[in-house]
Amino acid sequence: MTRRKNIKPSCKPQPPQHRPYRVLESEYLAHEAWFTPRRERVELPTGAIVPAWYVFEFPDWVNVIALTKDDKFVFISQYRHGLGETRYELVAGCREDGETAEESARRELLEETGYGGGRWEQFMVTSANPSNHNNRVYTFLAVGVEKLEEQHTEAGEDIDVHLFTREEVEALLADDEIMQCLHAAPLWKYMLRNPF
Amino acid sequence: MTRRKNIKPSCKPQPPQHRPYRVLESEYLAHEAWFTPRRERVELPTGAIVPAWYVFEFPDWVNVIALTKDDKFVFISQYRHGLGETRYELVAGCREDGETAEESARRELLEETGYGGGRWEQFMVTSANPSNHNNRVYTFLAVGVEKLEEQHTEAGEDIDVHLFTREEVEALLADDEIMQCLHAAPLWKYMLRNPF
Repeated sequence: MTRRKNIKPSCKPQPPQHRPYRVLESEYLAHEAWFTPRRERVELPTGAIVPAWYVFEFPDWVNVIALTKDDKFVFISQYRHGLGETRYELVAGCREDGETAEESARRELLEETGYGGGRWEQFMVTSANPSNHNNRVYTFLAVGVEKLEEQHTEAGEDIDVHLFTREEVEALLADDEIMQCLHAAPLWKYMLRNPF
Repeated sequence: MTRRKNIKPSCKPQPPQHRPYRVLESEYLAHEAWFTPRRERVELPTGAIVPAWYVFEFPDWVNVIALTKDDKFVFISQYRHGLGETRYELVAGCREDGETAEESARRELLEETGYGGGRWEQFMVTSANPSNHNNRVYTFLAVGVEKLEEQHTEAGEDIDVHLFTREEVEALLADDEIMQCLHAAPLWKYMLRNPF
């Protein structure tokens, strides 16, 4: 057997083991694009019964850390009605039927900002809340994007495009101005992985 | 005027400005602990009408990066029914009436793991999704916690406690095993802010 050097054994803990809940009853309360709640009566492994566990069904979501050829980060801003505030955000959207997650992210970047091209890789997979969301969120890293066309948002969307330096993004992160954790998580990861 | 040296002017971008949506109609569809959706007919600044914008109302949430006196990270694991998977997580919970966010996080840590004490500071504020959540998520950093009592979870909760080294947490983060972005975001931030 060949002796291989410099390969550190993984110190990653083994996956935790818990028995799934048993679904006793399940009912959809609505079937709308942004509102498909499922109410379930579930039995926990301990035998406890939860009469109403709510799961919000969504398609997978995507977002992208896009860097231009001159190392600017492509951000957007828009009013966010849930929180009632306006913040800087990554470009983000939904995976539509028949699209790969990368295709969705490329489409959203082009629609919302007019930027495209560059080298793409999947950078992170997260969940907004695994307790009550059934979907995953795929973050891509796109390096070397450039302005290809004008922004063409969906009817009525009010989205501004911003190009930020790394220092500006770090200043926003430091003050928790990137409130959306689906965006803050990959951005902090990026900063750690790509030191100045 | 005194000349102050070594103070770098903030490079943080000015807050973005967007007009809030105008609420034309608003209706609660339910009033349950984990299901208080509000359906609103809104007018966007562009004049476009969205007939049904859904906001999910929740109390503020809290979570905590807790480090023991011998530098172990206190994690839990539990089955998460929305995603249908079991993952490692930070201790987390809801802010109850009359509690500060720190009191809630201390209570949750004690209930779910039996750990307490130590020096606490607010570490991060995020949102699971500012588009359709109305609440904020407060992350605390607790350094020097110790086992004070036995875990006493709510009736039926099936939660295991794990103590991880920093290497183990970094290995979990590297493979996106901390799926919950409300936990991944502060953990990546912690790793960047506290290099080995």
